[in-house]
Amino acid sequence: MIMAASREDFEARLRKIGEDRYHDKHPFHHLLHSGGCTPEQVRAWVINRYYYQSRIPMKDAAFMSRVEDPKLRRAWRSRIEDHDGSAEKEGGIARWLRLAEAVGLDPDYVSSGVGIMASTRFAVDAYVRFVREATMLEAVAASLTELFAPKIHAERITGLLANYDFADDSSLAYFKNRLKEAPKDVAFGLAYVLDHADTMEKQDAAAAALIFKTDVLWSQLDALYSGYVAPARIPPGAWQPDEGLLAGKAA
Amino acid sequence: MIMAASREDFEARLRKIGEDRYHDKHPFHHLLHSGGCTPEQVRAWVINRYYYQSRIPMKDAAFMSRVEDPKLRRAWRSRIEDHDGSAEKEGGIARWLRLAEAVGLDPDYVSSGVGIMASTRFAVDAYVRFVREATMLEAVAASLTELFAPKIHAERITGLLANYDFADDSSLAYFKNRLKEAPKDVAFGLAYVLDHADTMEKQDAAAAALIFKTDVLWSQLDALYSGYVAPARIPPGAWQPDEGLLAGKAA
Repeated sequence: MIMAASREDFEARLRKIGEDRYHDKHPFHHLLHSGGCTPEQVRAWVINRYYYQSRIPMKDAAFMSRVEDPKLRRAWRSRIEDHDGSAEKEGGIARWLRLAEAVGLDPDYVSSGVGIMASTRFAVDAYVRFVREATMLEAVAASLTELFAPKIHAERITGLLANYDFADDSSLAYFKNRLKEAPKDVAFGLAYVLDHADTMEKQDAAAAALIFKTDVLWSQLDALYSGYVAPARIPPGAWQPDEGLLAGKAA
Repeated sequence: MIMAASREDFEARLRKIGEDRYHDKHPFHHLLHSGGCTPEQVRAWVINRYYYQSRIPMKDAAFMSRVEDPKLRRAWRSRIEDHDGSAEKEGGIARWLRLAEAVGLDPDYVSSGVGIMASTRFAVDAYVRFVREATMLEAVAASLTELFAPKIHAERITGLLANYDFADDSSLAYFKNRLKEAPKDVAFGLAYVLDHADTMEKQDAAAAALIFKTDVLWSQLDALYSGYVAPARIPPGAWQPDEGLLAGKAA
């Protein structure tokens, strides 16, 4: 058996995957954060990214359905609460729908899922299934894209505030909350992966799972870019810019 | 219960889905058949489409694993034989690898699956899982894109022969054989769907399954166009034009 890399070297390997492949490198994000997106392109992003948001708690429930240890389930449970909210506290999905409204979309249209690109569904569904079917180590490792998320959330808040009228504390609440929530999740997830990947084979599997997850994110932005950025080729059945708007918002 | 549409009207509804959404409408196919693809773009198509070919017999086996009736399994089995071949007869996958070689690719590279775009995998894997998990009626209905395939195969043979040096009887054997094989498959599948979709609800489910399948095909071409047609944005980890070439083929 090949010796496992040290904890430090393995963590560095995981972080390098983010440097190389995280979706903050995708041209769609540059366009979005720099103010280069049209209102239609922002809406397409909000509609399609909603599908990802909506599947995250299902992904977390799929993971918890496989966990025998109450302590681990308890630690994981807050992710679902963060997204779904509670009687007292608004969740991430509700915050995302506030963003949808702020950009001129009917939140009922967005949450209906109509108009989401098939390519978005294929990528996101692949993630939910991965978490359901791969090893627990791989499932947790796939969540470690959150290591790289605070930077993109911070850039996004700054970029959107500077460049778009719709951006304010209310519409960007999703991202502000993720900045608070993600660190606890990722600290837990990273410790779990470093603890459990105790052979080279497991380290390779965990690294491959993280690469898979960067692919899931990248593929969603490729679909957005391909569908809605010039030359736009909106796929059959996907959102058309005159659909799902709040009353009074011109297409 | 809403009355089912007549057999004729339901068949017309299915055929209309092809007219509206089959991937012969995608700009990548126009580019390919008109001779507008660079050698690199043809290779990217061959590499990524290989993944689809490689999963078709797995999809058919997943279907057969759910069929209790030996007669239906027997009727379906020829699809696997057509793709995998036998001691006496070359199968579709081997023919696809001949095409790979003809366009300058190392068939071992192509069959390794390295360099296939994640978006291609997500779309194709979604199809295999659909056939594993949806109702039998939906699984068969999803195969009915073959209703629309003979036209695209015929156009492809003509277009490739007219426009590319690599095209000849040997390299295009895959498509020529599909022209012979597909009619028996689709006649069987269509009769099955028309026989079994005996309520409006089932007709709706079958139509949705066929739409899903057109999405699977369309998404693959969107990924190809996005990755390899100007402005090309090759996703991280996907095939680079200097990889996987036969000795003596310049990138």
